[in-house]
Amino acid sequence: MQTRFSDRMADVPKSFIREILKDALMPDTISFAGGLPNRTLFPTEEIKIATQKIFEIYGNDLFQYSASEGLIALREWIAQRYKEKGLHVKLENILITSGSQQGLDLLGKVLLNKGDGLILEEPGYLGAIQAFALYRPQFLPVSVSEIGMDTEKLRAVVQSKKPKLMYTVPNFQNPSGITYPEKNREAVAEILKDTETLLIEDDPYGDLRFNKTQHTSFKTLLPHNTLLLGSFSKIVVPSFRIGWIVAPDAIMQKLIIAKQASDLHTNQFAQYVIHQYLRDNDLDAHISKIVAAYSTQKEVMRNSILRHFPKTVSSTNPEGGMFLWLTLPEKASALDLFELALKDKVVFVPGDPFYINQSHLNTLRLNYSCADVPTIETGMARLAHAIKTLLKK
Amino acid sequence: MQTRFSDRMADVPKSFIREILKDALMPDTISFAGGLPNRTLFPTEEIKIATQKIFEIYGNDLFQYSASEGLIALREWIAQRYKEKGLHVKLENILITSGSQQGLDLLGKVLLNKGDGLILEEPGYLGAIQAFALYRPQFLPVSVSEIGMDTEKLRAVVQSKKPKLMYTVPNFQNPSGITYPEKNREAVAEILKDTETLLIEDDPYGDLRFNKTQHTSFKTLLPHNTLLLGSFSKIVVPSFRIGWIVAPDAIMQKLIIAKQASDLHTNQFAQYVIHQYLRDNDLDAHISKIVAAYSTQKEVMRNSILRHFPKTVSSTNPEGGMFLWLTLPEKASALDLFELALKDKVVFVPGDPFYINQSHLNTLRLNYSCADVPTIETGMARLAHAIKTLLKK
Repeated sequence: MQTRFSDRMADVPKSFIREILKDALMPDTISFAGGLPNRTLFPTEEIKIATQKIFEIYGNDLFQYSASEGLIALREWIAQRYKEKGLHVKLENILITSGSQQGLDLLGKVLLNKGDGLILEEPGYLGAIQAFALYRPQFLPVSVSEIGMDTEKLRAVVQSKKPKLMYTVPNFQNPSGITYPEKNREAVAEILKDTETLLIEDDPYGDLRFNKTQHTSFKTLLPHNTLLLGSFSKIVVPSFRIGWIVAPDAIMQKLIIAKQASDLHTNQFAQYVIHQYLRDNDLDAHISKIVAAYSTQKEVMRNSILRHFPKTVSSTNPEGGMFLWLTLPEKASALDLFELALKDKVVFVPGDPFYINQSHLNTLRLNYSCADVPTIETGMARLAHAIKTLLKK
Repeated sequence: MQTRFSDRMADVPKSFIREILKDALMPDTISFAGGLPNRTLFPTEEIKIATQKIFEIYGNDLFQYSASEGLIALREWIAQRYKEKGLHVKLENILITSGSQQGLDLLGKVLLNKGDGLILEEPGYLGAIQAFALYRPQFLPVSVSEIGMDTEKLRAVVQSKKPKLMYTVPNFQNPSGITYPEKNREAVAEILKDTETLLIEDDPYGDLRFNKTQHTSFKTLLPHNTLLLGSFSKIVVPSFRIGWIVAPDAIMQKLIIAKQASDLHTNQFAQYVIHQYLRDNDLDAHISKIVAAYSTQKEVMRNSILRHFPKTVSSTNPEGGMFLWLTLPEKASALDLFELALKDKVVFVPGDPFYINQSHLNTLRLNYSCADVPTIETGMARLAHAIKTLLKK
């Protein structure tokens, strides 16, 4: 029997990593392709203790069906943490989701009709493109760089298209590692103010900051138009799939209905575990350890680039997060480089999937959170070799 | 700012329980309204031991991002259990979902275009109506009763509408408690055979069987056209949100893409816990305990009906599961009864939300899994009083 699939499935891009890397890699290939936090930094012992404790405290109550909104104590903890950062968010405006990825799906479900305009960073997060593509919006890419979003292009798009949504990762963006400077945030907010465009501020990496500069959240600049997404995946553990959406009352009501229809509620047992872990431990002390490691790894990767790569290859210098973005000379193709690098036993993600309908671009993403220092040095030497081979051709 | 929501949100029915019961009930009101398993039967101690064990075995590997398909060992366990029941399902055709509810959402996402025909049991499971409504199908209700699905109506609908999907809960249905007799299953399969209609067999209660009669799965009768949903919520614990879909290769490929876009993967920690629990314990022995309790509770409820209710009120006599269905005399309204019963401090779910666009019906759902025997007896005496008051009017 031939199955007819829904039209919406035709528009979903596949995951590059899943598709290209699913063939077995040669042994000892070094991967800068993933987007994973470093497993050696997971607070396993602390989570074990938290887990033992909740069995004593809650017993059978850990296991029943529970509220679609999520555990009240966990939502209180999140509200309190925002408060400490100067952001006033009420418990009622926080919905626990099965990771931030589900936050994107629920927002698409609740807000997007086919053809609605959706501003996307270019390059932008592939998971967001996948989640939103299912709701068939008109993607409106606006380029981002180390000076933030292209505000001239943004103004033109907002005025001509009156988009429904804009999706941003303003801190240590995936894939590029860039951070919107303060002035750029204000300019973006100024353009969106008094429009109907809702801004989705996805902030999974915000706490992984290598310096002291705190940037202003769009939730502060555009309090009524911002939907803020957060996640424990990068600062505690990803396998629990626990993230959240902060949304205004009217949207929250619809999100709860959509959450209920999508999976009833997020795993309650894991919510109890993570809440107990957060109660009993100093999260910021744990984050400091992650930051120390990633910051060192980033420096090692940057230094390798400066030492070994041709001067015609440029890279971003992230202030935090997990990714760094490489730009090859014009007309060089990162897909061609991928083929060569594969032979040299090092892999990355070429830029193409982070753009809408573009191919053979000269950009690529490198992840530095997962590999230790010697591995980064070896991998970058291999990549330098592959780049030189490519550029000699 | 006024938010414009997506058109799909307009069609989602709200949860009766959430809407009507959210106002505080009077203290000591007895609820037959919920759809919860009995919390006193959760295998808390065994899960605690399984949890301790996985920390020793897997350590940090419990916490990384993982495959969208789910844990291989858990999918193997599920395949093996089907095999013991005579159903041959390959590991590759099992996708772990965040509860069966997500299975419904993913199937809607992957298969339904707006206006596609979807056959629904009437009365039918509210959670399925909610999940599918978001994809805006044309609902085609076909009535079910203790003799199963109305095959004459089914044949007419299949021939005239060529529906994309049919959704069924053939064992101990929610809300009615009915089970399709063997002959009815064969007749349904005969009608669907050689059509393009895919059958979704949702079987969360199948193991909660009060007698020895095993019925044939639609997956056996229509192996290529059946999508089979299963869940650990009713036989282990619901808060983990772990269910699964069994689907043919082509559909599985699309489901994995949709799963990835929806929440990347199901909580991996909970998958490890439940797998360890299943390895180390005799699930069927545990299910026997649940069955013994629910079976007794059902009998007590049935006996109360026979003893205290007017003879004009009829009920189903479920062979398993958690629900029993009451039919009041024609023209009596279960919504009116609800108002009276609330005063008598007993609640249930009136039939309306289990139908498409019908109201003031004379049917209602009673849950017997959650309350102990004395509570059921007290609650049923109160309900008898409310019914007599209603019928006297």
